[in-house]
Amino acid sequence: MAGKEARAAANTFGPRIMALAEHLAQWSEQPDALTVTYYSEAHKKVAAELGKLLRAAGMDVRTDSIGNVIGRYESAAPNAKTLLLGSHYDTVRDGGKYDGRLGILVPLALVEHLNRTKQRLPFNIELLCFSEEEGVRFPIGYLGSQTIAGKFDPKNLDATDDDGVPLRNVLEEAGVDVKSIASLARRKDDLIGYVELHIEQGPSLLNANTPVAIVTGIAGAVRHRVVVEGEAGHAGTVAMQFRHDAGAAAAEMILAIEKRCAGTPSLVGTVGQLNVPNGAMNVIPGRCEFSTDIRASTNEVRDVAVKDVLAALDEIARRRGVKVKAEEVLRMSAIPLSPYLQERLKAAAERLGVNPLMLPSGAGHDAAMMSGLTQSAMMFVRCGNGGVSHSPLEIITEEDADFAARVLFDFLMNLAEEHHA
Amino acid sequence: MAGKEARAAANTFGPRIMALAEHLAQWSEQPDALTVTYYSEAHKKVAAELGKLLRAAGMDVRTDSIGNVIGRYESAAPNAKTLLLGSHYDTVRDGGKYDGRLGILVPLALVEHLNRTKQRLPFNIELLCFSEEEGVRFPIGYLGSQTIAGKFDPKNLDATDDDGVPLRNVLEEAGVDVKSIASLARRKDDLIGYVELHIEQGPSLLNANTPVAIVTGIAGAVRHRVVVEGEAGHAGTVAMQFRHDAGAAAAEMILAIEKRCAGTPSLVGTVGQLNVPNGAMNVIPGRCEFSTDIRASTNEVRDVAVKDVLAALDEIARRRGVKVKAEEVLRMSAIPLSPYLQERLKAAAERLGVNPLMLPSGAGHDAAMMSGLTQSAMMFVRCGNGGVSHSPLEIITEEDADFAARVLFDFLMNLAEEHHA
Repeated sequence: MAGKEARAAANTFGPRIMALAEHLAQWSEQPDALTVTYYSEAHKKVAAELGKLLRAAGMDVRTDSIGNVIGRYESAAPNAKTLLLGSHYDTVRDGGKYDGRLGILVPLALVEHLNRTKQRLPFNIELLCFSEEEGVRFPIGYLGSQTIAGKFDPKNLDATDDDGVPLRNVLEEAGVDVKSIASLARRKDDLIGYVELHIEQGPSLLNANTPVAIVTGIAGAVRHRVVVEGEAGHAGTVAMQFRHDAGAAAAEMILAIEKRCAGTPSLVGTVGQLNVPNGAMNVIPGRCEFSTDIRASTNEVRDVAVKDVLAALDEIARRRGVKVKAEEVLRMSAIPLSPYLQERLKAAAERLGVNPLMLPSGAGHDAAMMSGLTQSAMMFVRCGNGGVSHSPLEIITEEDADFAARVLFDFLMNLAEEHHA
Repeated sequence: MAGKEARAAANTFGPRIMALAEHLAQWSEQPDALTVTYYSEAHKKVAAELGKLLRAAGMDVRTDSIGNVIGRYESAAPNAKTLLLGSHYDTVRDGGKYDGRLGILVPLALVEHLNRTKQRLPFNIELLCFSEEEGVRFPIGYLGSQTIAGKFDPKNLDATDDDGVPLRNVLEEAGVDVKSIASLARRKDDLIGYVELHIEQGPSLLNANTPVAIVTGIAGAVRHRVVVEGEAGHAGTVAMQFRHDAGAAAAEMILAIEKRCAGTPSLVGTVGQLNVPNGAMNVIPGRCEFSTDIRASTNEVRDVAVKDVLAALDEIARRRGVKVKAEEVLRMSAIPLSPYLQERLKAAAERLGVNPLMLPSGAGHDAAMMSGLTQSAMMFVRCGNGGVSHSPLEIITEEDADFAARVLFDFLMNLAEEHHA
């Protein structure tokens, strides 16, 4: 059943995926922007609509108590294992139509095709539409996937939204017995793995003129708040050689971070916050504050860079006669993705004539949670408009959506052949 | 009358100058800080006290309608010319005891000595205690000296303080006919020149282990507001080589400014304000704003540096694919000081065994205004505590005050010999 005919027929997914993304984008908390945060009215509407779409595609559908919509397309084989596909359906404030949702809609279009053509695979497909990943309403993030992966932390129930409402109250008002959440964890015995498609949210594919990338791992960030203290002074009366300028010292540190993080694959370093507090045009800065965020696809690469950066900060401070204090405020582990699944996704793209990029993911994704449950993989789809995401300017092309769907379909068909064999 | 005896007797000015500075510091607008701004009660008290002190030193005293207290120590010679000495008696908020006042108290101590020893010089001495230089209450500055120098701008009358009170009202309530202010301009025909002593407000003398410096010129600043616009992006998803980071670009620009302004005597360049607006730890800066302030003792040195800096900003922006806009917001001319008077002050210091530094003044002073009226000169006195000024930590030593007084006394005695000859 997984032959050339099926692959050829798949060549019509693009328009359907684009239409589905537009369709879901009609529900929002804001009239002129796409905003769908956890358990808002728009969020419940999107969940209900996803339930209808999955059911229409021949899936058994249930919505769990954390808001995940889960469709199951049964295998014809007895005691079949299960492949998980999916991503999240919530959005950031004023976000884009594809972030998260593409990873739901591409598999949905494939299952619609399988159902329409009455094909069943030698494994079950479960399509996981995660209720929350962005951490917008509650400062948690990954609520949907952490629950499925068995990593839900009961402390999350005390987290509050901007109105001071705890997550516990939101769930209890919806009739959820919060003690039951732990039981939503998926058993892992029967799982083949988890595969997530996601828009790239960066320009690498655009610049490489390539529609898809296979993700090699998910970077973990280490963040510091850095304070440089020098000596304030009159901009006119202190000769350059006698200055201990906190701003100039910070500038040199920023360039040292940039230089250290350039040239190493997957390594990135960012100074996102930078400020001379109460700076005046005629006063040499006595204090400068900035943030650092350093990531790589492995903890090892990142941690060596962090160590080098901290040493560079100290050296610069010593040489300039200023003080520097770097406080670590975040440390997340890098997450490797399944070589087995990466290889099969890559082979699928190659069979369709494309040599995919092999890219680390700098941002976190549901796959980071799911990799704790089962072997996981991700495929990035080219992001237009210079790679902008978390923005209404986030776009993909119909051609790329179609290509990504055909790669995933080819991957499924080949996995099916393996499972037959 | 200007012999070795008089010079030897001068060796007791230090304690008197220090005591006078403490004495004047008892009047303030704030209980725990020295703050004397224009036409405050403390300001009027200090003016009245200065009048008494000058009168007691044998001077004819008048207070003009802008608040300058002017003491005249008459020459014995008929048709004698006049040497102006002085500085300002207002302070910044929470300022020091010596900024401005040292230039009043050193000449006062010398005139007290002349009066006590019944010496008259072949020229009149006028001690100008300027009412306002710091620009704290009204955003003007140099109110006292600009009036004496004939540069009072009637537009100043419309300037308002923080309570919205215009300068005009303050003066009219004090009974001043504001139309008469122009008539306070000093006639220049009979003037020898103007000499101002001032605390250095920087660490050059401290670092050079030298008590005094002769000021070669007063720097004029050129200031820009600079905006760098790059591309915001996710700190995890945009590889280093694809970034157009406005913050990193600004950092490179700041170092270019520092480098260009180092190593050239009198040239200084300062980035006092620096900010990534709404910066987030996980967002590549799309915008960065900073200020520049570039000064030198000549317009030529400064303007070449400004041109080079602007070219460097453009080059950095082009290379990094960001936009830069530098708006000039201030341009003040550098003011040369009198070589004739500089030479004589320098010779006086040398006769007392000290090779004085020859320093530009990065900050503005009343001498900048007075140089438009008559040849002017300045001498800096070593500033303790690392060179800090505009602060209660501003200090000088009694020994340095004494040495500065002896230099000025020697200068007067030698000028007297010249005028006799």
